[in-house]
Amino acid sequence: MTRLEQQIQFIVEIDKVKQIFRQTYLSDAARKENDAEHSWHIALMAFMLKEYVTEPVDVMRVMIMVLIHDLVEIDAGDTYAYDPEGAKTKAEREQKAAERIFGLLPEDQGAYFKGLWEEFEEYRTSDAKYAHLLDNFQPLLLNDASGGKSWEEHSVKKSWIYKRNERMEETSPEIWHYMQEIIDRHLKAGRVIDE
Amino acid sequence: MTRLEQQIQFIVEIDKVKQIFRQTYLSDAARKENDAEHSWHIALMAFMLKEYVTEPVDVMRVMIMVLIHDLVEIDAGDTYAYDPEGAKTKAEREQKAAERIFGLLPEDQGAYFKGLWEEFEEYRTSDAKYAHLLDNFQPLLLNDASGGKSWEEHSVKKSWIYKRNERMEETSPEIWHYMQEIIDRHLKAGRVIDE
Repeated sequence: MTRLEQQIQFIVEIDKVKQIFRQTYLSDAARKENDAEHSWHIALMAFMLKEYVTEPVDVMRVMIMVLIHDLVEIDAGDTYAYDPEGAKTKAEREQKAAERIFGLLPEDQGAYFKGLWEEFEEYRTSDAKYAHLLDNFQPLLLNDASGGKSWEEHSVKKSWIYKRNERMEETSPEIWHYMQEIIDRHLKAGRVIDE
Repeated sequence: MTRLEQQIQFIVEIDKVKQIFRQTYLSDAARKENDAEHSWHIALMAFMLKEYVTEPVDVMRVMIMVLIHDLVEIDAGDTYAYDPEGAKTKAEREQKAAERIFGLLPEDQGAYFKGLWEEFEEYRTSDAKYAHLLDNFQPLLLNDASGGKSWEEHSVKKSWIYKRNERMEETSPEIWHYMQEIIDRHLKAGRVIDE
């Protein structure tokens, strides 16, 4: 197989991520969002919101990181943010998936993507922190726009959202403040449980 | 409205592009693809396939260009590649859409995106040529994977595909060669009309 054929094999394989649906609804609440749509959205946000990040980031690296961060779900499925059972096996399932999927590529590109995915998962570098902020902020905006539908369906508690987003403030106080306002509004409307 | 509020207004507005469906089927032919999924796919391809491009390109600019290139379709709708009637009014409909949608943003970001979109449409710079190559190559890969379903449905002729892709060879002879092989295969199988 030529290098180009390997790359195309990967490009066609990752088409499957368009079939992995998340728990977040689109802004009009008509249907749930899939991983490709979510990744498109946050890649563009990575460019748009860089001015609010406290540490220097490499925007292009962050864009690539978020474009590939959910590909492991082609094999491992989507684990909902507030699913403690799924969380137990998530790391192992996703590690296997990363090996298979990025293993389709020529070695240099496969290693680069796998490294970026691991960096995202480790959540330590400024690029990974920014990618996590985007990954968490975007569904919050959609939940807000869709009237908190997903929060209501899963009886989500305020403490869960705060726990999940506890590292947001260090990455961007301004965006964290904006997120708190959204949560407060849905708390008052009874769509997020005050616990 | 603060700068951040303007940016978020835009981020929520462009969620609608996930509802704009194209004529291309996903690789498994189960359903058609939408603009957000398509844009996600080609943004990642922009990074992956840069080694095949004859002229120097700024990959990050191309990524942003392809992430935003279909946003005008939120107002203007998708005009199928082989729709001569739709093509007549496309430019005017899309220009109006660009003004409204990019006009939601703070002036600097709105002007940057609108400029990138115009550069894409003008199809002159090396970045725009690469973006067009990706925009045309990706549906071809999906048409191939889905057994030529969209070509069959629209009775697509070889001459239409060649006309649409006539500038591909100057951008990447290697990818153009690969595309020709795909078209030939579907021509032989009778899924593309030999005219």
